[in-house]
Amino acid sequence: MPTQRIVVLAGGIGGARFLRGLKSAVPDAGITVIGNTGDDIHLFGLKVCPDLDTVMYTLGGGIHEEQGWGRAGESFAVKEELAAYGVGPEWFGLGDRDFATHIVRTQMLGAGYPLSAVTEALCERWQPGVRLLPMSDDRVETHVLIDDPDAAAGPGAPSRKAVHFQEYWVRLRAGVPAHAIIPVGAEQAKPAPGVLEAIAAADVILFPPSNPVVSIGTVLAVPGIREAVAGASAPVVGLSPIVGDAPVRGMADKVLAAVGVESTAAAVAGHYGSGLLDGWLVDTVDAGAVETVEAAGIRCRAVPLMMTDTEATAAMAREALALAEEVRA
Amino acid sequence: MPTQRIVVLAGGIGGARFLRGLKSAVPDAGITVIGNTGDDIHLFGLKVCPDLDTVMYTLGGGIHEEQGWGRAGESFAVKEELAAYGVGPEWFGLGDRDFATHIVRTQMLGAGYPLSAVTEALCERWQPGVRLLPMSDDRVETHVLIDDPDAAAGPGAPSRKAVHFQEYWVRLRAGVPAHAIIPVGAEQAKPAPGVLEAIAAADVILFPPSNPVVSIGTVLAVPGIREAVAGASAPVVGLSPIVGDAPVRGMADKVLAAVGVESTAAAVAGHYGSGLLDGWLVDTVDAGAVETVEAAGIRCRAVPLMMTDTEATAAMAREALALAEEVRA
Repeated sequence: MPTQRIVVLAGGIGGARFLRGLKSAVPDAGITVIGNTGDDIHLFGLKVCPDLDTVMYTLGGGIHEEQGWGRAGESFAVKEELAAYGVGPEWFGLGDRDFATHIVRTQMLGAGYPLSAVTEALCERWQPGVRLLPMSDDRVETHVLIDDPDAAAGPGAPSRKAVHFQEYWVRLRAGVPAHAIIPVGAEQAKPAPGVLEAIAAADVILFPPSNPVVSIGTVLAVPGIREAVAGASAPVVGLSPIVGDAPVRGMADKVLAAVGVESTAAAVAGHYGSGLLDGWLVDTVDAGAVETVEAAGIRCRAVPLMMTDTEATAAMAREALALAEEVRA
Repeated sequence: MPTQRIVVLAGGIGGARFLRGLKSAVPDAGITVIGNTGDDIHLFGLKVCPDLDTVMYTLGGGIHEEQGWGRAGESFAVKEELAAYGVGPEWFGLGDRDFATHIVRTQMLGAGYPLSAVTEALCERWQPGVRLLPMSDDRVETHVLIDDPDAAAGPGAPSRKAVHFQEYWVRLRAGVPAHAIIPVGAEQAKPAPGVLEAIAAADVILFPPSNPVVSIGTVLAVPGIREAVAGASAPVVGLSPIVGDAPVRGMADKVLAAVGVESTAAAVAGHYGSGLLDGWLVDTVDAGAVETVEAAGIRCRAVPLMMTDTEATAAMAREALALAEEVRA
């Protein structure tokens, strides 16, 4: 039997944990991950790719398990020293071990290697057991439009400003209204080498329970990727990141509001749409949504969707693959 | 009484320790340090300035005292991680705290600030109590010509290759013959802003017991600096880095040989020459050299020259300043 080729569009923590379950469920599959780079940020002159690194560290055994991002056994000497120099931001938690990754990446980018080649080189150390591709080698940065409290009061509409996604998410803890999510540079970006080829050759395409707006939505915003997924011969199956009208983790509801989508499992399926999705898994507490989703032309099943451990996550992956086979048949 | 303006040409450890003694001897003096940048090196995409940092850390209270370079209380997580990525060199000992300095420097240089402005910004934190100027904002890198053991055997002269000074000094421990010392880029370099002005306005100019070839020699190799020192109205007094025919510390004898100078206190004075030096201090064990040095037209005194602690070093500084007054009178 030929190796099953699975393509997964992934953000950070949710995508990484799902991938660990998927690898456990189908250890012989050939998994290609198309990672979000819209949350990439330049800090201290270094290129930081939080989502790519979370996938790499999680699958490579280097992740800080409780936290879900960053390195296990981390120390913070560099960050303390930067603060002593008055150099910030202090709100972004870069540890010493993590810094090394960004130093290597920045050095390679400076030497002319594209991000995809750099990611491959970093993965030579981590051996994540998947092929990890950035969605694009071009710079895309997700910005969030928020109210500007510093703007001078005056007549007319309130002043707004765009901040980097990380500033909105990490510094502000998504605690202010997001009026729009703007993947700056996405329109001019090209899919990284191998991305479209992997989608075209896939046997199954999966959307993990990642953020549908700022993770998977950003990947789909790179011209060519949405069209490739929609036109792929492989079934496309997603897993709801919303369970019982709230995000399983993170603050997906905040950015869903910015794009006018309700925080429900059914609304997220509708947001992707039947043009993209063939199948959708909702949690058993959202079984009532199955009918709505199927009425929209998307095959739907209600199964447990809490990634409490690798085995529970592997079961979710098996359900997703089973739904894909059902759709295909 | 107006503040005494002292200009010191300095390398790394020897210069830094002498400066600590000088500050202790004349706490009210206005001291300008013209630091060697010929040992600067790009490592991991970061700009490292070992001599400037050694002066800054030593005078700012952050130095690793026993080692003489690098930070006290240092850790090495970043370096270990870089090694895990297979990224070297491993022979250069950059600690986590030290990395922060290079990250800030590289970020500022990338933003367009010249090295002199970056050094001033870093010194805002360290408050070294001196004005620390790089000899030049232009890139100068000292290379050392050594035999090339990898060259194919063949007729004619043995093959040689140039390696970065740090590779010769740190990796090879100056353990192979140095055939030439080449300050690459020096001919095109300009003195940093303030350097020539400080020399012209100085009341005294001092050469600490730093390496006369790769530290002070490199500073003097920047066009305009040697001429400014030679033409300055202030007396120029140096302290021998050679005591009893051997370097007080380091491996100055190795690079003296490369420029055809004996490792003696008198030979180093002769290397600088009476065109540059007005006064020269040798150690008491080298009292026999006084006559030779004076015969060459340089006023000379034999005094204890071991920088065993700050008080002994302060006494050396006082002797140097006294000799300057004697020369001036």
